[in-house]
Amino acid sequence: MDQLSFANPVFATYAIAAALMVLKIMLQGWITVARMMAANGGMVNPEDAKAGPANPKPRPGQLDLNEDVERSRRIHRNDLENIPAFLAIGLLFVLIGPSLLAAQWLLYGFVTARLLHTLAYSTAQSHEVRAIFYSIGSLIVIAMAVWVLAAAIPRVLN
Amino acid sequence: MDQLSFANPVFATYAIAAALMVLKIMLQGWITVARMMAANGGMVNPEDAKAGPANPKPRPGQLDLNEDVERSRRIHRNDLENIPAFLAIGLLFVLIGPSLLAAQWLLYGFVTARLLHTLAYSTAQSHEVRAIFYSIGSLIVIAMAVWVLAAAIPRVLN
Amino acid sequence: MDQLSFANPVFATYAIAAALMVLKIMLQGWITVARMMAANGGMVNPEDAKAGPANPKPRPGQLDLNEDVERSRRIHRNDLENIPAFLAIGLLFVLIGPSLLAAQWLLYGFVTARLLHTLAYSTAQSHEVRAIFYSIGSLIVIAMAVWVLAAAIPRVLN
Repeated sequence: MDQLSFANPVFATYAIAAALMVLKIMLQGWITVARMMAANGGMVNPEDAKAGPANPKPRPGQLDLNEDVERSRRIHRNDLENIPAFLAIGLLFVLIGPSLLAAQWLLYGFVTARLLHTLAYSTAQSHEVRAIFYSIGSLIVIAMAVWVLAAAIPRVLN
Repeated sequence: MDQLSFANPVFATYAIAAALMVLKIMLQGWITVARMMAANGGMVNPEDAKAGPANPKPRPGQLDLNEDVERSRRIHRNDLENIPAFLAIGLLFVLIGPSLLAAQWLLYGFVTARLLHTLAYSTAQSHEVRAIFYSIGSLIVIAMAVWVLAAAIPRVLN
Repeated sequence: MDQLSFANPVFATYAIAAALMVLKIMLQGWITVARMMAANGGMVNPEDAKAGPANPKPRPGQLDLNEDVERSRRIHRNDLENIPAFLAIGLLFVLIGPSLLAAQWLLYGFVTARLLHTLAYSTAQSHEVRAIFYSIGSLIVIAMAVWVLAAAIPRVLN
């Protein structure tokens, strides 16, 4: 059976995890937009502070930093530091042919850790809570990268 | 026929869209460099303000923010919030086996929306113009992610 | 032979390069954490300056910018501007079926350039040294993208 087929349950598991993480990245962009609209501020471009359909009532200070908006940008940046690496290594991990159980634990574990990280970050939980979810996600990516290295290095040494 | 073969026109379409978007990301880095050279400023590292072949005539204020340079960095950041997610979900989308027409609309649609977004951003068009191109690109990625979920979820529930 | 198999030495080469670059991204996050702990500062979230197991002795100014921490964040950002694009285009490059020698030069060349870039950046070498390694990595990604375009465009014109 082709490993990169939806008929392969390990690949289907990866596809679900990857699609959810792609949605997570994209939705964070929209959350930043929603927070800028709610705050009527937090914009970063001079042209955004001009009057227009999206900004009917400009006010001074719309380009000042807004903590709610910046928090969403920080969450987004944290996603970018973790999710693209996950998407790439997850695909290589599937090609190793791991057991479905290992794939489910690692792939869904990353998704769960990332979603809980955003939840903890959004609600300004203590550093320790956020750090636990960050660490779980990061260690899963590192584990998959080491696993891929262990599978690939013997093949180039022959 | 292997789906991940250049002989598959859907895959070839993805490869073209992906390569163009990779070039877009890389070129934005060079645009930032060119703008720093044009402004003789906008640098972010203390060592960059020292005299050397790339900085023959240091002047005070080279580490101050420069709007042209920062605008290029903001465009770059916006690319990073959208393009890596597109690259990953586009590959999974190809593996669903969509029609060539659907692939062309979504993949080339994303590329076009992203290039027009950069054009609008670079020339400081109104927020609304930029937002339209951002939204088209973002919604295409979201649509492909939902499509992948719809293909993958039934396979893991059996 | 399946091109995306570890038995294909070109793919195994890509898998090693990709896994190393994924580890690089993840480790930079931990370096930022380590530098925040060493500086007992450089944090970006108000909640991180509160007392807790990870911050037993809060002090004023923990949210101020810290150059060591910011440098690690800039290195991380530079990675994100280069590595995800490399991961995506490298996989497409493998599917062209290049010679093993070409793959080794481009893929390991990128990895080497990126690691030397981080070394130069971390130790605040002159702009020129850092720029050389940045340029090598960037040009390798651009070369692979052009190569992919050259392979894919004829297939969609038929």
